Amino acid sequence: MEKMKRAERMVAVMQVLMSKPNMLIPLTTLAERFGAAKSTISEDLLAVKESMRCTGQGRLETVSGAAGGVRYIPEISAEDAGGFLISLAERLSSQDRVLAGGFLYMTDLLYDPAVLRPLALIFAGVFREKKPDVVVTIETKGIPLALVTAEALGVPMVIIRHGNKVTEGTAVSINYVSGSSKRIQSMTLGRRALEPGRKVLIIDDFMKAGGTALGMINLLKEFDADVVGLGVLMETPREEEPKLVDHYLSLLQLRELDPVKGVVQVIPQNSFLHYQKL
Amino acid sequence: MEKMKRAERMVAVMQVLMSKPNMLIPLTTLAERFGAAKSTISEDLLAVKESMRCTGQGRLETVSGAAGGVRYIPEISAEDAGGFLISLAERLSSQDRVLAGGFLYMTDLLYDPAVLRPLALIFAGVFREKKPDVVVTIETKGIPLALVTAEALGVPMVIIRHGNKVTEGTAVSINYVSGSSKRIQSMTLGRRALEPGRKVLIIDDFMKAGGTALGMINLLKEFDADVVGLGVLMETPREEEPKLVDHYLSLLQLRELDPVKGVVQVIPQNSFLHYQKL
Repeated sequence: MEKMKRAERMVAVMQVLMSKPNMLIPLTTLAERFGAAKSTISEDLLAVKESMRCTGQGRLETVSGAAGGVRYIPEISAEDAGGFLISLAERLSSQDRVLAGGFLYMTDLLYDPAVLRPLALIFAGVFREKKPDVVVTIETKGIPLALVTAEALGVPMVIIRHGNKVTEGTAVSINYVSGSSKRIQSMTLGRRALEPGRKVLIIDDFMKAGGTALGMINLLKEFDADVVGLGVLMETPREEEPKLVDHYLSLLQLRELDPVKGVVQVIPQNSFLHYQKL
Repeated sequence: MEKMKRAERMVAVMQVLMSKPNMLIPLTTLAERFGAAKSTISEDLLAVKESMRCTGQGRLETVSGAAGGVRYIPEISAEDAGGFLISLAERLSSQDRVLAGGFLYMTDLLYDPAVLRPLALIFAGVFREKKPDVVVTIETKGIPLALVTAEALGVPMVIIRHGNKVTEGTAVSINYVSGSSKRIQSMTLGRRALEPGRKVLIIDDFMKAGGTALGMINLLKEFDADVVGLGVLMETPREEEPKLVDHYLSLLQLRELDPVKGVVQVIPQNSFLHYQKL
């Protein structure tokens, strides 16, 4: 590759790093790729780090030593996170989202990458220090949120299936009581989907009584998993509906939903505080 | 914000653009954010464009005029795409992936962001010119692939559900024959999930006879959708199993799978050629 000017090389280095978030890239790889000395790349990275501090949208992490290198950690600033949750709560508090049966229509947002990405960065920001090896969710609506969170953390995702269809070898099933419907249901996870003893972050879209979350925690015990965190996008108020699980983070609260009057109110949680005091 | 040096500003501009792929960002926004004149930002962008041409990992698209601005289009080079598919085919051609009943274990890869991202860029590269408004898939295993493809294209995703549970208002259900199992099944999509007349890209993980894909196409007709593309990660050989649909793109072929002998062979498709001649 032809030699590049410093500014252009910095931009190109940046692009390579941001295209593979959370992946450790050896300085040698960058040096070879851009035909520059390792010391030159090191200097470039110092300047790149400095620019990133200004945007608050992510940072570079350098690992020294023979197996070292540099990785891009995507982030969201506290200000952007707060602003995003406020606007999301407003979008959800719209009368035309109230469905018959007391449901809230939110799949358009749950399946939209532009909405999911900031949510993933919020969850990743909170749970990164717990160093999860994998993000676990249960089908179907929470899958997109779990996937983008896994990507923001640089780990794979595992999906627990409803029922007990087994097409993937040995599997573990568990019966659980969905807290809100009081019906007995079952969920299944294949043995080879999750190695024993992993650190797990559970992500789901909604928590009512928490029966599903409790079922997931119990199922994960069969895999000797260490559940290091539980994050949900939205929950019903704890004072109205006691939860079957503690120690979780929710970002939004469904304050009110009245299908007869057609009234809905969603508010951002003061969740970081909440979570941190647990 | 304090004034930045040119190289640092270029990196920061790059970071802002890459953090919101496919989103048009007005030059005024960048100028205000970095305390620079619009003409300065324009010059920066020219240099940024130039660096990107060197990496082959994405490009800047500028839109002129009052509603104009600049957006980052993520891409994968033909060379990287080919190399990635070859290595993925090798990983899948492993004896310990052969499951009883003649299934191939691949969910570990289908749920791994590091595997999904290049696949999404390949699909996006092929289908971008068809200008889909939305990516549609059917639960469950194809959801992660559809989501990352939607993000690479900058559009939302829609998930068709199995069965006909309706909790989201009026819905359309259709019966279909899963080509391989010959069983009659049903799939459902809520009316408000997809506006009439949209351009749709269908993405799924696997195609055997194509019965599910045909069902999706028929269901989408009820939404006056214009199916502009159909992409699957893997298919069985067309000569062994005639397909119920034409005009699709598959990236890998499951050449052989013998659960008795424990033999599996997956090869990359010469799909781009295939697709382009249709």
